[in-house]
Amino acid sequence: MYQRSCRLDTSEATHVVYVVGAELKLNLVRCAPPESKFFSIRCSSNVHYKVTPAAKDKNVAAHPLTPNSLLFITMDTVSEVLNDRKLSVRYYGETKNTIGNAVLHLTAVEMSLDVDADRDGTVEKNNPNKASWMWGPKGHGAILLVNCDSESGYFKTTDSDKDEISKVSDLQDMSKMVLRINGPPELPEGYKLSMHISKTGSESVRVFRPQTNQDGQIKKWGHKLLKLFLKDYIMVVGKDHLAEEVPYLGGKSELQFFVEGLRFPDKDFDGFITINLSLTEPSAKGCPETPIFTDKVMFHVSPWIMTPNTLKPIEVFVCSTDDNYAFLKSIKNLTKICGCKLKVCHEYMNRGDRWIQDEIEFGYIDSPHHRFPVVLDSPRDGELLDFPYEVLLGPDFGYVTRQTVDETVSSLDSFGNLEVSPPVTVNGKSYPLGRIIIGVAFPTTTQGRNMTKVVQEFLWAQKVQEPIALYSDWLVVGHVDEFMTFVPAPDRKKFRLLLASPDAGYKVFKRLQNNGYGKGEMFQGLEEAISVDDILNDKQLQAENIYVQNCIDWNRDVLKKELGLDEEDIIDLPILFKLVKDKEECRAVAYYPDMVNMLVLGNQLGVPKPFGPQVKGKCVLEAEMCSLMEPLGLHCTFIDDFAPYHKLLGEVHCGSNVLREPSTFRWWNQEL
Amino acid sequence: MYQRSCRLDTSEATHVVYVVGAELKLNLVRCAPPESKFFSIRCSSNVHYKVTPAAKDKNVAAHPLTPNSLLFITMDTVSEVLNDRKLSVRYYGETKNTIGNAVLHLTAVEMSLDVDADRDGTVEKNNPNKASWMWGPKGHGAILLVNCDSESGYFKTTDSDKDEISKVSDLQDMSKMVLRINGPPELPEGYKLSMHISKTGSESVRVFRPQTNQDGQIKKWGHKLLKLFLKDYIMVVGKDHLAEEVPYLGGKSELQFFVEGLRFPDKDFDGFITINLSLTEPSAKGCPETPIFTDKVMFHVSPWIMTPNTLKPIEVFVCSTDDNYAFLKSIKNLTKICGCKLKVCHEYMNRGDRWIQDEIEFGYIDSPHHRFPVVLDSPRDGELLDFPYEVLLGPDFGYVTRQTVDETVSSLDSFGNLEVSPPVTVNGKSYPLGRIIIGVAFPTTTQGRNMTKVVQEFLWAQKVQEPIALYSDWLVVGHVDEFMTFVPAPDRKKFRLLLASPDAGYKVFKRLQNNGYGKGEMFQGLEEAISVDDILNDKQLQAENIYVQNCIDWNRDVLKKELGLDEEDIIDLPILFKLVKDKEECRAVAYYPDMVNMLVLGNQLGVPKPFGPQVKGKCVLEAEMCSLMEPLGLHCTFIDDFAPYHKLLGEVHCGSNVLREPSTFRWWNQEL
Ligand SMILES: [Ca+2]
Ligand SMILES: [Ca+2]
Ligand SMILES: [Ca+2]
Ligand SMILES: [Ca+2]
Repeated sequence: MYQRSCRLDTSEATHVVYVVGAELKLNLVRCAPPESKFFSIRCSSNVHYKVTPAAKDKNVAAHPLTPNSLLFITMDTVSEVLNDRKLSVRYYGETKNTIGNAVLHLTAVEMSLDVDADRDGTVEKNNPNKASWMWGPKGHGAILLVNCDSESGYFKTTDSDKDEISKVSDLQDMSKMVLRINGPPELPEGYKLSMHISKTGSESVRVFRPQTNQDGQIKKWGHKLLKLFLKDYIMVVGKDHLAEEVPYLGGKSELQFFVEGLRFPDKDFDGFITINLSLTEPSAKGCPETPIFTDKVMFHVSPWIMTPNTLKPIEVFVCSTDDNYAFLKSIKNLTKICGCKLKVCHEYMNRGDRWIQDEIEFGYIDSPHHRFPVVLDSPRDGELLDFPYEVLLGPDFGYVTRQTVDETVSSLDSFGNLEVSPPVTVNGKSYPLGRIIIGVAFPTTTQGRNMTKVVQEFLWAQKVQEPIALYSDWLVVGHVDEFMTFVPAPDRKKFRLLLASPDAGYKVFKRLQNNGYGKGEMFQGLEEAISVDDILNDKQLQAENIYVQNCIDWNRDVLKKELGLDEEDIIDLPILFKLVKDKEECRAVAYYPDMVNMLVLGNQLGVPKPFGPQVKGKCVLEAEMCSLMEPLGLHCTFIDDFAPYHKLLGEVHCGSNVLREPSTFRWWNQEL
Repeated sequence: MYQRSCRLDTSEATHVVYVVGAELKLNLVRCAPPESKFFSIRCSSNVHYKVTPAAKDKNVAAHPLTPNSLLFITMDTVSEVLNDRKLSVRYYGETKNTIGNAVLHLTAVEMSLDVDADRDGTVEKNNPNKASWMWGPKGHGAILLVNCDSESGYFKTTDSDKDEISKVSDLQDMSKMVLRINGPPELPEGYKLSMHISKTGSESVRVFRPQTNQDGQIKKWGHKLLKLFLKDYIMVVGKDHLAEEVPYLGGKSELQFFVEGLRFPDKDFDGFITINLSLTEPSAKGCPETPIFTDKVMFHVSPWIMTPNTLKPIEVFVCSTDDNYAFLKSIKNLTKICGCKLKVCHEYMNRGDRWIQDEIEFGYIDSPHHRFPVVLDSPRDGELLDFPYEVLLGPDFGYVTRQTVDETVSSLDSFGNLEVSPPVTVNGKSYPLGRIIIGVAFPTTTQGRNMTKVVQEFLWAQKVQEPIALYSDWLVVGHVDEFMTFVPAPDRKKFRLLLASPDAGYKVFKRLQNNGYGKGEMFQGLEEAISVDDILNDKQLQAENIYVQNCIDWNRDVLKKELGLDEEDIIDLPILFKLVKDKEECRAVAYYPDMVNMLVLGNQLGVPKPFGPQVKGKCVLEAEMCSLMEPLGLHCTFIDDFAPYHKLLGEVHCGSNVLREPSTFRWWNQEL
């Protein structure tokens, strides 16, 4: 229970404002006339009190005053008017003669700053857990969204960049907070209610409220008054404004507040925000007021959450360029089959940059009251750089980015190198939103390429999809989507991990040779055409592929361990690589279109057409791929991306992006 | 178990280095000749293997090859020479005709990077918990000290500022780490051992090792070779140097490493550091090597820990000025009684700045192998600013500071405003090292003074003494030591909280008046002399003291709650305050020497002499003080600090500082 020390005074009556639920503690000795030996107490019927040490004989009117006599006062009903209750302490000398009388005039008020701490979408009254935060289904604590979308169509910025509310729709993105009062119509002269946040908090949160009739009476605002008449909603606390008086509406009243998050969890911000309310009483003239009651609530900002391939696709994004008409058409057909939307990013916006997977990653933020998608903009900043901000950012479509100041951005900063697994459980620890997967340099190398620190720190700080760092720097482009993907499955863990496998590739080619198809041609009709025999006779290529298989196997072992997978959860796809000289180092690229770099839309897979050798008019690589996928109920559509993507070192996945439905699992229910 | 995927090859023998404790996993199908239907396995006696799915009939030589046939290999003894074991897989066709043979040449080696993960002071072998960290008596995880002392007497810097070891004594401050090897004398050509840390880790840790005979054989070092011949110990990893090859000594060998911490936990550093070791194998010509084994260990840097008044004093620090001769003498006498040392900071160093409490705070760092005191230097930077670095920093005496870049430093940054409680238990949560106490502005005010963010963040980040923020901005000087202190006690929680109390002060004066001593004088013989009657008649003073009592009571309520105290754990000391105009605000100063601002040395208290009214030649305030302290076995020595300290708004505590023995409780045993 909130306990407050309070003074007694025998020279004049003391006026005390009491907040219901607290306990007033008065030292009976400290202010007693020096010769006091006994005391007695009288009070109004709605005042409850207790004395310690308890009087031995309850029937005598005057109790002996001991060196540690304390008086505790509570009330459980609120005052109709100021000072409507009274309590007096009478002090007696040795002969029970009265030598002093201390009178308290009491005003009781109910007061609580309330939030949706039980996460059901409504702001309940004075939740006992409102000031703390706990993860998990039995957890508690209110939730905040970063107001990173943009309500305004013209002169676009994210809403969190503005310290005012320009559209009422913006309130939907904010968490409600309510100041509930029950008490006399007014507080005594000089008493004030203030909302306040810490300096660190002010970088992460802003609070608004509608203006009220009382606002004229709050004098301190001064320069803010102008804004009062311009706007229906005024800022209470926020950036560079840590504390502000709030009106006491009195009677039985509720004052609504709207709370917006300003930044995502990051290396230097754990996502927790505390908002305080204090009631202060006036002091002696010239002295600052002293606080007599403080209430507080805690929020956690929603992390940015990625969506794995197993979630339902809503909209597919591709770029239109001067050379990809047929490719676009294939994608359009595929989206039609899947019943999802297609958004084409046209040339005036993409300026020839077709790698829409690499410029952005789609995610979302979630709270009990609202959720919306948020695009993470890569520091890659190719010619597509304006697309996320100019096209995607809008009402209920958020935007976030991390820019590096002192590091060079490498190919590993493209978001083909940022993926997320389906939900997994690893050694009893569950990741119901999956785990983020990124590719980095192998740590023993000193000159390897890496994803920039700021983006990595951002991803780790979101906490709910604890990242796994794979080794992708062995590839020229260096993206994890060049050797792995996830597809939905009806059985086991409800998904399979697909991995590129040169060994599986060689096996297909050797079988062909054994079966007398050694003269069959890869890339038939193209200038790159080469026979199965020639591929198998290339000892250098074979050595390179052993190396690639080793690199992938290293990642395979990491993924098995970090995702808790069994061998049966993994499928090897027949894909060969070759090494090319990349500056001083040798790095790998796909030898033929890299089938694992696919577009996954429900049970429809858009797979790069591999141009493998044919047997009886059918491509053996396609046939192998289908025979691996069909038992899972998955249908492969092979898309020709050879000229416009494969030859530029990318494939179908690199050239597309998918906005997916959010998970039905709510992030705050995760056990961390 | 550490599992590693490995390739089989029917075209040529494969050489594999195996680390004991791991498991090799080989896909029997992936590399089998396409027509294979059966397989059989033969191996050296010291190679163990398992096949899944298990063969139904164990007696037949050739088992059927299924699509998911896997081979698992382990060894439990190490190789004497390279490739001293063999395993071969023979593949058969439909008619059990041999169609392929894959041979593995195996080399087994034991290898572990070891630390003192069980915290007993010795580096045990391959502790299963070495890669993680857990708080508490049943916890685990190695411990690191920030090497913040200075071995060198001349050209002084903290050792962590230098990337070389200049004195062998510096190794005492570092944590030992051992690379234990058991295996053949050499690794196969091209295999390498590397130590590596993350970029973030490199800001926090440096690793050294002695040079070895093998060092000549490691060619990559190039420019480092010069250093090799100059120094016995060379840096392996550290700032801007994330990875380095380490020699494989071979046979049964141990290579020692020495690990030093570079920074304390802070807002952006949680104190955890991981160090990795990797074994890489060479790849095809021109390709980077691939990792085949990784080991890692985790450290936590010791937090900076403060010492409460209840710990035994070692040395008292005071400044000598041109006006404090008598004061110095009193302190000297007191230290003599206590049997602790006295260090006088002379005028050439203090340049007239007598507030040695405010410039520094003593603490320590602790590990199973070593501990030493560390001074936290305040950003206050008065004329004493050179003292901590120039005088205190030295061998086994560390130094740390936090400087603010963008905030103004206020009086609240002085470390009279930084104290620590004795050990407490609060609602079942125990703080065996106590809790840090600082004073800040009351949060409803926007223009209040605060302790700077960087220092507050540093204090919070140490974690083991979770800070409590009190409200001290109501005082002109604004330090918590102006209204509170802790003294040892034989009973209850083994300490008492002493609080200044104007009510307790007035009570003493009223009793005097009632007993006929109203004409008795405070400050007798000084120009400030004033009678008891005059003090009691001053209504303004009374109002001011009610305000002060309210401010202290607010803090009292916070302390009771945050330290889990009962009324009986708190003693009110009779001290009056007065308000003075401090710029626009009214703030408080002590009306007479502030007895709570005392020096606590075991059971000896050095208390500011209050100059109270006398009764029968004895000061009533001193008598009251003694009557409160003596039942606790505490002895008060009243020290006249009136002219040189009190009139300059400080007292005995502000003018002294105490280096104390560290707690016997080790911080890593705390449950967090
Ligand atoms: Ca919005
Ligand atoms: Ca991606
Ligand atoms: Ca040292
Ligand atoms: Ca201090």
